[in-house]
Amino acid sequence: MGQLLKSLREYADSDHLPMHMPGHKRCMGEIGNPYFIDITEIDGFDDLHHAEGILADAQKRAADLYHAEETHYLVNGSTAGVLAAVSGCTTFGGKLLMARNCHRSAYHAAFLKGLHVEYLYPQSMGSMGINGKILPKDVDNMLQSSPDTEAVLLTSPTYDGIVSDIRQIADCVHGYGIPLIVDEAHGAHFPFSAQFPEDCVSCGADVVIHSLHKTLPALTQTGLIHLNGTLADRERIRKYLTVYQTSSPSYVLMAGLDSCVEWIRTHPEAFDRYVKDLGQLREELRRLKYLELLEVPGMDETKILISLRKTKWNGQKLAEVLRQEFRIEPEMACSTYVCMITTVADTKESLERLKEALCRIDGRFTGEESAGRREAEKLHSDEVLRTESVCTFQEAEESEKEWIFVADSCGRISGDFVTVYPPGIPLLAPGELITAEVIDRLCQYEKDRLEIHGIRDGSIKTVREDGKISGRRGNCI
Amino acid sequence: MGQLLKSLREYADSDHLPMHMPGHKRCMGEIGNPYFIDITEIDGFDDLHHAEGILADAQKRAADLYHAEETHYLVNGSTAGVLAAVSGCTTFGGKLLMARNCHRSAYHAAFLKGLHVEYLYPQSMGSMGINGKILPKDVDNMLQSSPDTEAVLLTSPTYDGIVSDIRQIADCVHGYGIPLIVDEAHGAHFPFSAQFPEDCVSCGADVVIHSLHKTLPALTQTGLIHLNGTLADRERIRKYLTVYQTSSPSYVLMAGLDSCVEWIRTHPEAFDRYVKDLGQLREELRRLKYLELLEVPGMDETKILISLRKTKWNGQKLAEVLRQEFRIEPEMACSTYVCMITTVADTKESLERLKEALCRIDGRFTGEESAGRREAEKLHSDEVLRTESVCTFQEAEESEKEWIFVADSCGRISGDFVTVYPPGIPLLAPGELITAEVIDRLCQYEKDRLEIHGIRDGSIKTVREDGKISGRRGNCI
Repeated sequence: MGQLLKSLREYADSDHLPMHMPGHKRCMGEIGNPYFIDITEIDGFDDLHHAEGILADAQKRAADLYHAEETHYLVNGSTAGVLAAVSGCTTFGGKLLMARNCHRSAYHAAFLKGLHVEYLYPQSMGSMGINGKILPKDVDNMLQSSPDTEAVLLTSPTYDGIVSDIRQIADCVHGYGIPLIVDEAHGAHFPFSAQFPEDCVSCGADVVIHSLHKTLPALTQTGLIHLNGTLADRERIRKYLTVYQTSSPSYVLMAGLDSCVEWIRTHPEAFDRYVKDLGQLREELRRLKYLELLEVPGMDETKILISLRKTKWNGQKLAEVLRQEFRIEPEMACSTYVCMITTVADTKESLERLKEALCRIDGRFTGEESAGRREAEKLHSDEVLRTESVCTFQEAEESEKEWIFVADSCGRISGDFVTVYPPGIPLLAPGELITAEVIDRLCQYEKDRLEIHGIRDGSIKTVREDGKISGRRGNCI
Repeated sequence: MGQLLKSLREYADSDHLPMHMPGHKRCMGEIGNPYFIDITEIDGFDDLHHAEGILADAQKRAADLYHAEETHYLVNGSTAGVLAAVSGCTTFGGKLLMARNCHRSAYHAAFLKGLHVEYLYPQSMGSMGINGKILPKDVDNMLQSSPDTEAVLLTSPTYDGIVSDIRQIADCVHGYGIPLIVDEAHGAHFPFSAQFPEDCVSCGADVVIHSLHKTLPALTQTGLIHLNGTLADRERIRKYLTVYQTSSPSYVLMAGLDSCVEWIRTHPEAFDRYVKDLGQLREELRRLKYLELLEVPGMDETKILISLRKTKWNGQKLAEVLRQEFRIEPEMACSTYVCMITTVADTKESLERLKEALCRIDGRFTGEESAGRREAEKLHSDEVLRTESVCTFQEAEESEKEWIFVADSCGRISGDFVTVYPPGIPLLAPGELITAEVIDRLCQYEKDRLEIHGIRDGSIKTVREDGKISGRRGNCI
């Protein structure tokens, strides 16, 4: 047995409570020994990239569950879905309007196709410190000023569960005769309870990407892409799915997808039970005094966001205490809050355990040590920053670059992605101007011990000031 | 339980003998319930895209096993490895020298980066009908005439087990100061017996891609990419691995990779036993009278190629009889031969069962019905055809296109990939001239009932003759 498997089993045998993805929470699922059913495209078992038999049927069942016109399996995660959707809806060197708080895969798609990108910025949520909705009027304004835009892409719900008005945005985007792509990776559970927000397929989005593993009982790395209407070029999207997904897709992952779909179809009552238990949990968390349950009208309430803005702690500190003292593993710790993912695989007991832990931690704060922290120092935030692009990602990538100290980088052009994990939204993309605000945010993240990719020994990769920016045949270092 | 899982279990419960990938042959492997160990990037379990802990250690163990300087896990198959290798070793719009018999993922990489592609053609194997080696002198000639080539890519072994002289080719390519990428997807077992051909890492290739699932006991969709020397830009390859692989890699697939590495490390004797049994099988298959064991000096002998050139059958017919009468499932049936994959997971008994079946089928032929078939009609072949490119794949993709009957397409420019499965090598790529020879081959494949992607109701997608070919901002239909 490999060491990695040993460690995974030891962890699974421990009593750590998963408040993170995957949505099966390690207790749902029935595949048995995966090797036993792990085959390849033999006679009778179809070909995912040209499905006409058993896999076409399975994908049809997924489409039916989501009321989509056409659905494809993703075995390379939502990543492959976002890459294929953006690639299929744009031409090389074309223009994309995308939300600044999209997942890195959206940036990668724009990079691969040499796209000119314009950004939609989420509404500010003030001292909540999280990204808000994308407003329909902002979409309309941007499309009015950029008539050559080929597609619009946004993320709803966000990692934090914030939902945009997709129905209104879809109407607006369709008015310009172009498709709306929604990365709904975190909202695959939406259709299964009236208590959840309305799902994007129902709201009229042309292309919708779902991670099944994030909030439903499916294996990690699995998802669905739904295609609707006539504005998105389905043939091109299908072609790009073949480009971005392995030619040897795992039947284990695919069997897990199909079993998840079947389980949902046959267990509608499970969501009723879960929603009831969840409502009770939230009710009790609203009574916390120092820790604070963040709530936004219309949000996805399955995400439990605990803000630290009334305390002296940051997200990392709360995550550490939850993990070390209570053996509860949260999904994401940001500067100002912690995000917990609950799913239908959670039981009344697991939610109770989370509540107990948060109440006990809350009880330790005193007015003295918690009050006024945020007034005294600069208010931290995890909202995306406004950035200015000097050239396309691809042009920056192909330019000469140099590493310089972050402290000296104000006014320079970023030569690479700088991303904080989670949630994996780039703070800087190649070709973007490095501002004082960006540098401040990097210092905040550094101080809060978040994981930053793209910074090395205090330095950042920038486009050389004496080098020329050129997309097609630039020199690379 | 989903219908797909049910069908997979039923199949697994049958006594079909797998002479195809995955290499674990459904009988090796020890992961247990995959949901139990399926987690995400929580504390202590590292991040594949920024590995510094448990996954860095696991990848180091894989590197050690293969004597590579740097090794990364692939959870999106060799596809992701080939995409990342080609993308990382070339600039946008740059030039790649690649073997014409590369897997479609190599073509996709060239397409995404807008590369100008020059082809190396495999040596003809005459009436064997299979693709031969790539010759070092051909590589040298091509590089001499194209000094702006940025990288060389070839596949060795081929799907059929044909191995090129990588040591000499690497020397040649390095003489031009550029990296050699080898898609060694089918040769991941090479280092583990002196009876197998020498592996590409040992031969000096700069980037080597291995499918672990094809010939070793690992789960489908898993592979490794090895990076060596200083000619390949490792930083760029690492970046592209992050682009082409999901941000939620499966710990089940990764645990399977690590367990496979550990099993190989601790079971050297298993390969000795297997090689001995395999030698005996081949010895006996050499005595077939009408069916014919194809053998090429230096080839990978774990592949069992049975040629039909002395019979009136085609590959599909032999595959059908093996499947229906003997419940033996081969890996690939081409026009002129059938390919069986044997691995270390095969037992003396499973190899014996294959031999028995082939001997019994062979005994049914008579001189009369088998002789002279190939003289009477045009000799069929599964070798790649020589093609002529009019523009890059990307330029063709962005041009206006139309569907026309295959019979009327001679002299037109292909607007898409046309690929026969398996092995998944494009017969035509976008921008290539459709010749009479190509049309003949399409008719042959049609007649032999092979699976062809890119043909629809007898029509083929071509570049419109009145449309302009334009890469950057062409019109798409």
